Amino acid sequence: MQLHLIQKELKSSLSSKRFRHTEGVAASSRELAERYGADPDKAELAGWVHDCAKEKTLEEMQALVQRAGFFLDAPVLASRALLHGPAGSVYARLHWGIKDPEVLNAVFYHTTGKPDMTLLEKIVFLADYIEPSRDFPGVDTLRARAGKDLTEALIEAYDSTIAHLAWQHAYIYELTLAGRNALVLAQKQRS
Amino acid sequence: MQLHLIQKELKSSLSSKRFRHTEGVAASSRELAERYGADPDKAELAGWVHDCAKEKTLEEMQALVQRAGFFLDAPVLASRALLHGPAGSVYARLHWGIKDPEVLNAVFYHTTGKPDMTLLEKIVFLADYIEPSRDFPGVDTLRARAGKDLTEALIEAYDSTIAHLAWQHAYIYELTLAGRNALVLAQKQRS
Repeated sequence: MQLHLIQKELKSSLSSKRFRHTEGVAASSRELAERYGADPDKAELAGWVHDCAKEKTLEEMQALVQRAGFFLDAPVLASRALLHGPAGSVYARLHWGIKDPEVLNAVFYHTTGKPDMTLLEKIVFLADYIEPSRDFPGVDTLRARAGKDLTEALIEAYDSTIAHLAWQHAYIYELTLAGRNALVLAQKQRS
Repeated sequence: MQLHLIQKELKSSLSSKRFRHTEGVAASSRELAERYGADPDKAELAGWVHDCAKEKTLEEMQALVQRAGFFLDAPVLASRALLHGPAGSVYARLHWGIKDPEVLNAVFYHTTGKPDMTLLEKIVFLADYIEPSRDFPGVDTLRARAGKDLTEALIEAYDSTIAHLAWQHAYIYELTLAGRNALVLAQKQRS
């Protein structure tokens, strides 16, 4: 399906706030791809579709990942926040015919992260934090870091989420910590 | 070995600040054991010896756990903060002849935590946070919580560490998160 048709559907189906965020992630993903040598078109496409399932109900998300036969951890299956990435990758494939596994995986892992992310996965994960409409304490510092050091910016993004969830005493996905720790240990060896 | 001899050795070998902390953990462990129905003598003993290896060098800690044949994760072996519990449990066994596995495990896991901790392990883990000489933002709230709800207090203790490490962009041990998540999910089911 052509990009402008996907955009049109997103505009009519998402809340205006979510659509503005989506535009921002598409633009920031393209920018980061140009900066770090990933494919800008793939990055932008992944940015456009990354939250396509975010406003679906938990039951709709569960039906999507079930249809795809994904085997997911119980706490992921029970959480809209954790499930919308995997569900969105299924929706993008089934509904829009997006077949590129790089794009689909960037959508799948954009919230949870994981160890050994591809460059494209890292870019969409980070763009989700720094896109222009984002507004949280420290976002400007993170934006500046994102232009300079991808790994450091990723660690800061992971850690802002982990600290936030810890303060809320909310479940923290083990894969997220594993992805974050792998970068912390790699960074330590680099320095 | 008799407790007063262990205390005497700790007093002469530890820094005065660490000894004061140790006294506090012994007292708080006994108190929590009385409150929650664990063995107060075992709890107090574990409290006394929990930090016996804390001021050793990394090499000394590594030699201790190697002697015991423990198989530990690489990041634990590289960290005095993570290794002093396992090393302390070996020292307590080899040097003082403490053989009670409940006491030794409470020493082993007092910093890292883990899923499915025994009551005694939970008590020493928590006493380490709330003993009277501890002074960090929120410690009074945590002390009050510890007298009312062991699980909630444990989650808060875990999360104060996890948030602190996240802000420092320091390695967070996966076992610690797994222990903390198990309590968060159990608590969710309870409520």
